[in-house]
Amino acid sequence: MKESIAEQYRRVRELSETLSGPLATEDMVVQSMPDASPTKWHLAHTTWFFETFVLVEELANYEIFDPAFAFLFNSYYNAVGPRHSRPHRGVLSRPTVEQTWRYRRHVDEAMETLFSREGAEQERFESIVEIGIHHEQQHQELLLTDIKHAFALNPLRPAYSEGRITKVAVAGALAWVAFESGVRRIGHEIEGFAFDNETPRHRVFLEPYALGDRLITCGEYLAFMDDSGYERPELWLSAGWDVAQGQGWQAPLYWERADDGWRMMTLGGMREVEAAEPVCHVSLFEADAYARWAGGRLPTEDEWEAASGNVPTEGCFVESGRFHPCPDARGDGPAGGIPRQMFGDAWEWTGSQYRPYPGYQPPSGALGEYNGKFMSNQFVLRGGSCVSSRTHIRHTYRNFFPPEARWQFSGIRLARDEA
Amino acid sequence: MKESIAEQYRRVRELSETLSGPLATEDMVVQSMPDASPTKWHLAHTTWFFETFVLVEELANYEIFDPAFAFLFNSYYNAVGPRHSRPHRGVLSRPTVEQTWRYRRHVDEAMETLFSREGAEQERFESIVEIGIHHEQQHQELLLTDIKHAFALNPLRPAYSEGRITKVAVAGALAWVAFESGVRRIGHEIEGFAFDNETPRHRVFLEPYALGDRLITCGEYLAFMDDSGYERPELWLSAGWDVAQGQGWQAPLYWERADDGWRMMTLGGMREVEAAEPVCHVSLFEADAYARWAGGRLPTEDEWEAASGNVPTEGCFVESGRFHPCPDARGDGPAGGIPRQMFGDAWEWTGSQYRPYPGYQPPSGALGEYNGKFMSNQFVLRGGSCVSSRTHIRHTYRNFFPPEARWQFSGIRLARDEA
Amino acid sequence: MKESIAEQYRRVRELSETLSGPLATEDMVVQSMPDASPTKWHLAHTTWFFETFVLVEELANYEIFDPAFAFLFNSYYNAVGPRHSRPHRGVLSRPTVEQTWRYRRHVDEAMETLFSREGAEQERFESIVEIGIHHEQQHQELLLTDIKHAFALNPLRPAYSEGRITKVAVAGALAWVAFESGVRRIGHEIEGFAFDNETPRHRVFLEPYALGDRLITCGEYLAFMDDSGYERPELWLSAGWDVAQGQGWQAPLYWERADDGWRMMTLGGMREVEAAEPVCHVSLFEADAYARWAGGRLPTEDEWEAASGNVPTEGCFVESGRFHPCPDARGDGPAGGIPRQMFGDAWEWTGSQYRPYPGYQPPSGALGEYNGKFMSNQFVLRGGSCVSSRTHIRHTYRNFFPPEARWQFSGIRLARDEA
Amino acid sequence: MKESIAEQYRRVRELSETLSGPLATEDMVVQSMPDASPTKWHLAHTTWFFETFVLVEELANYEIFDPAFAFLFNSYYNAVGPRHSRPHRGVLSRPTVEQTWRYRRHVDEAMETLFSREGAEQERFESIVEIGIHHEQQHQELLLTDIKHAFALNPLRPAYSEGRITKVAVAGALAWVAFESGVRRIGHEIEGFAFDNETPRHRVFLEPYALGDRLITCGEYLAFMDDSGYERPELWLSAGWDVAQGQGWQAPLYWERADDGWRMMTLGGMREVEAAEPVCHVSLFEADAYARWAGGRLPTEDEWEAASGNVPTEGCFVESGRFHPCPDARGDGPAGGIPRQMFGDAWEWTGSQYRPYPGYQPPSGALGEYNGKFMSNQFVLRGGSCVSSRTHIRHTYRNFFPPEARWQFSGIRLARDEA
Repeated sequence: MKESIAEQYRRVRELSETLSGPLATEDMVVQSMPDASPTKWHLAHTTWFFETFVLVEELANYEIFDPAFAFLFNSYYNAVGPRHSRPHRGVLSRPTVEQTWRYRRHVDEAMETLFSREGAEQERFESIVEIGIHHEQQHQELLLTDIKHAFALNPLRPAYSEGRITKVAVAGALAWVAFESGVRRIGHEIEGFAFDNETPRHRVFLEPYALGDRLITCGEYLAFMDDSGYERPELWLSAGWDVAQGQGWQAPLYWERADDGWRMMTLGGMREVEAAEPVCHVSLFEADAYARWAGGRLPTEDEWEAASGNVPTEGCFVESGRFHPCPDARGDGPAGGIPRQMFGDAWEWTGSQYRPYPGYQPPSGALGEYNGKFMSNQFVLRGGSCVSSRTHIRHTYRNFFPPEARWQFSGIRLARDEA
Repeated sequence: MKESIAEQYRRVRELSETLSGPLATEDMVVQSMPDASPTKWHLAHTTWFFETFVLVEELANYEIFDPAFAFLFNSYYNAVGPRHSRPHRGVLSRPTVEQTWRYRRHVDEAMETLFSREGAEQERFESIVEIGIHHEQQHQELLLTDIKHAFALNPLRPAYSEGRITKVAVAGALAWVAFESGVRRIGHEIEGFAFDNETPRHRVFLEPYALGDRLITCGEYLAFMDDSGYERPELWLSAGWDVAQGQGWQAPLYWERADDGWRMMTLGGMREVEAAEPVCHVSLFEADAYARWAGGRLPTEDEWEAASGNVPTEGCFVESGRFHPCPDARGDGPAGGIPRQMFGDAWEWTGSQYRPYPGYQPPSGALGEYNGKFMSNQFVLRGGSCVSSRTHIRHTYRNFFPPEARWQFSGIRLARDEA
Repeated sequence: MKESIAEQYRRVRELSETLSGPLATEDMVVQSMPDASPTKWHLAHTTWFFETFVLVEELANYEIFDPAFAFLFNSYYNAVGPRHSRPHRGVLSRPTVEQTWRYRRHVDEAMETLFSREGAEQERFESIVEIGIHHEQQHQELLLTDIKHAFALNPLRPAYSEGRITKVAVAGALAWVAFESGVRRIGHEIEGFAFDNETPRHRVFLEPYALGDRLITCGEYLAFMDDSGYERPELWLSAGWDVAQGQGWQAPLYWERADDGWRMMTLGGMREVEAAEPVCHVSLFEADAYARWAGGRLPTEDEWEAASGNVPTEGCFVESGRFHPCPDARGDGPAGGIPRQMFGDAWEWTGSQYRPYPGYQPPSGALGEYNGKFMSNQFVLRGGSCVSSRTHIRHTYRNFFPPEARWQFSGIRLARDEA
Repeated sequence: MKESIAEQYRRVRELSETLSGPLATEDMVVQSMPDASPTKWHLAHTTWFFETFVLVEELANYEIFDPAFAFLFNSYYNAVGPRHSRPHRGVLSRPTVEQTWRYRRHVDEAMETLFSREGAEQERFESIVEIGIHHEQQHQELLLTDIKHAFALNPLRPAYSEGRITKVAVAGALAWVAFESGVRRIGHEIEGFAFDNETPRHRVFLEPYALGDRLITCGEYLAFMDDSGYERPELWLSAGWDVAQGQGWQAPLYWERADDGWRMMTLGGMREVEAAEPVCHVSLFEADAYARWAGGRLPTEDEWEAASGNVPTEGCFVESGRFHPCPDARGDGPAGGIPRQMFGDAWEWTGSQYRPYPGYQPPSGALGEYNGKFMSNQFVLRGGSCVSSRTHIRHTYRNFFPPEARWQFSGIRLARDEA
């Protein structure tokens, strides 16, 4: 039976608490870089979203928890007013974590009042609540992504979770799955939730192409490194070469050279790099350079989506409470002509810069700022990673980050032109 | 009769001298910002290109003019060796302008020796010479673009040319020219010169769309400014808003508020802004914000190219020795269902980020660095401006600049989705 | 009876805990700017000092609490090894506050073992312990200074302490106390503790001068502001003008314009500015500009010290557990020919850049880095503030900060030349 | 017979032309870093000084050459109005060099009109003209200093002058010249020209000290380098260590490691470093680190001036038209108890930060900005270099630069405390 919106709300809100469980109060305060946010901020910002876009609009007599929070926890909605500077989220010790939990409870209780209403009254705000739920799920992924970054910067190298975290390997040499040319339909269909940037569904023409049948592994990436991949400008986009040189990149983020090989930071702490697992935490620039070195290229997002049509999106994700290891029948089974590891392993950099689909219209009002205004100088990632929420694992989901971003769980799939 | 490669070479090389004619020695030394280059550098760099890629390869016993120039005048070819830092081109007083002219003559004489050879021997290097010619033409446009920037920064506001420079106006209200959906062919066909990034010709699918039948005028852009266009974040891409606020943009580059209205810097010095002329020197961010304000959007480069098929590319350009005013039958004639002002007025920002065409292959060797490695975080411009070379005015030419660039002669054409 | 070194140790160590008492765990983690440090870091760094310079040297079998702390909590001692980057202290969530307290207890217990030894053995390390105690007292002042800065940045404006914090006012118009020319002796004499930079005692010649008999008040400083003090470059040092313009200074740090006048952040939260209280949180540049506007100048540190000879240093300070309000018989009594408010009100900027005294010799080893290596581009402050430790309030103490620093409790005393 | 003010004016103005003689037009336009200025700017700015402070005030009917020049060639006089941004002097191609020469002639002719007047009328402005002359002499030194920097940055390494430029060596091991304690008089006496910052003459007390009897040589400095002087933080001021690491200092400015030893850029081009010549182009930070390594320290400016009393200031300087080699009886003669090489070899870093003398009063009006407002975060240099003007070589002259400045002709003299 389909989960009600109230049930979804409760489940997702509770997961945020579960994900914060392993963290000390101190962990929830720090911001390791301007792109990352403190856990405390994620918890409060997602709550502010419901308060601002649902409760204030829908619930008569709703009492705002603290008017100052509108300034502190607005991320980028210009239409809603001024905002606290993003790079300074980590200098805020107040509200405390305890106050943040109280804020969440205050909002959750008011939401229950809303959910207890019936009929048309409820339907009216369901779509906003649904966006809020998906919004919180996005921040759950960021919460894990950001705390990994903070822990990696700490010389004490704390572990978020106990036990070894392993990415699932797929056996065998890389094979190619070919696709014929023709007009394809891209973008979200009417059924189920999607963000505005996945619409409208539209036609594209694809020339013949092929995709690698699995993600690039750490072992393959090591071969690129051993072949002086980081020292050969001819392999790199010019802007990528500049940033790689300027920041001294020599390996994926979180990798460290040890006496006996490479080690890397994971949510379970430091461990050795495994040759067979998918490489992760590379930038678009590194993914692009690797692809050039390997004689291929990155897929466009249209190619990726068109190819993913028959690939099931099952896996294990954040909601399971265990973001790893992914049980992966996908990994072991026969490829059978479809690419594997498309969902829930690592976000896959595409060669497409993030721009609107033909006919795209952002919603009116503040929620129109959700996606559209970021459509410059970002590249699209597809598929979802091991820390993505289950419901974000879909064929049409468009994630996007600047080409130098490395702290996301981002990996590489190859493509090539076919005759 | 078709111009021989030697004739083309002589004509283009001479034009560089002609364009430098109005400049004092001092003007040819300065660099007004890291993105711009001194005139002297343009003159030497284009010469170095022929020396390095043609003479050293083809002419036995060719004597390099000065080995140090390889370091000084290499712009970005990693394969050819290390380079002098771009932002510091303006601190080099030597070689002097006189030495630079001698360098040009040295290379021109050696080129003549090559041209005097016959048959297969010559054909072998013709394609490289052709690239060098087009390369020098690109730098002729930059030479004018860069000196305009330098003169605009100088409080004395020198004029490059005498007489008033006027952009050609097109009469009447903006009309829309509609195009139906379907598969179109995009990219350069076999005939004539093209850069690698214009190839291969390939198919795309276009949903129904319409283009404005002329460029946006200064008067229309003033209406956007008067409607607080620069103060309303909801009109802007997020990154554009940040740069506009950070740099205090209030109008197009080169515009200045005077007591009696707006004035602007031109190659002919300061003059008042004319309402009917096309707006120029706007960034992609401004073009995009204007389009959103006007209820439209920017065309994709595919839409633009598909729409330009029947538009003639006649005009007056740099080669004429007069980069203005453009005699413009185009402007006055009846629109007749085709957009006007597509060629030679102002570069038109498209909404497409600059990425390779399907099947794109850069040439091998150093010339492979010409275009491909810049394919991130830039937007495509189409059409050519009043300072573009005649032979660069073609349907498939892909110009590209970062979205914040304003010092190019870049303007706005609107597009919209059709039902 | 003189306090033993062990008693001093216990008293000062306990005060650090007392001072941390009002803080939430979250407060102890944040770093509001590169110059400031988290409370947690102050608590651990002062502990690391005893561990490194006393316990490791003196106590056989001492077990280091955590070897990684040497990297995390070394502030600037190059001789002791590499250090964690200062600007990134606020990204460290671990060790937690609780671990930090355990670290302190671990070290305190080992120190007690040392203290239980007798005779020559103990004397040998007493001087290092004494430095460690004074070092921790310096960090107690910084702890308060830094948390004030962090709270001031937080839009919620938390208060560190309850109740109104008032700086003590001195009644009456500013009077001048004159001093004759002659040779004076400056620097620490043999008795009591002093830092190396206060030695050796030496002779200076002073031309005739006079000092203001009290600190400049907020009311007087407001007159400077009202007279366009922040808009008149002729009043400012050139470097000061640049920083004031660049950072938009319009008033002392922590002042905010309200509808009904100026308000300011204190350790007790926001409150209105009082005209009679000493102005505080001004930079050297502001103090110097004020003095020029007022027709005077800042005193040199030699003038200040020579004038302070007969001024008693009693007051109330951090050790009292109440850093405010200062009971101030000093303030109310007749001036009697001596400047008042010299000790324990606000650090007084002098016109002297911080350089070594003639004959100065830093100690050998790591402690030689304590003071000497900071002797460039800083100005000396004298006297001590309301958050200074009692034992740092002495005639020869040399505090020093860069001329743009404002977050210290720094105020203004005038001087002038006499005929 | 004493040179008249008009004769001085003509001589100094002509020297600026002579010094510009070896330069190409292009050389006179470039600015190699924000601290340096183009030759053209030096020539115009010194002319603007006479126009603004003398002609506009004194000569009825004087016609300003170009009103825009007041904006372009004001260096830092806030009282005179707004200024063109210093770091952008090198982007100005206009006025051209030829226009600048015409500007100079225009002003020189008007000055002659003034000089032709007689008696009281002339005396009234003589002191301003005298400042203007000394001001131009300061810029003559900067002209040479700045063009050396520009040529050193140019990979072609042009030479300003033909022939080898040699700094004069002093034979023998370093000896110490001791001075007793006591009250000394420091500062300019009534006779002859001096800048305001050299006054008033006042008393200081000096503890016993000694000075090295000559400058530190390149050979001695090489011993410091070979002893890892640039890798040992304990030798450095903390701020110096940071800048040395941040900028990768490994040797004095202009030194380059060659296969067969060290070479350096001079005004005569590149040549090998000579062990016996004085080391030059070191920062205060390097001078201070060297002194610490050598077991000494830098002299204070009071010590330096007190010691220089009996040292003659003869030498060869810019006015001779040959800024080198310095004929140096000073160098070869017996030391006879006085330090040698105090004047005209290299500016000598002192350990004194640049602050006003007791009783210092800047002049009123714009010329009050000449010296006083730079009195923070600079160190005093004494003695004058081989490119200083003859009349700037005096016992009381106070030069000043930030401690990281290296492009001046700055060297090292040791001092030490005596018992």
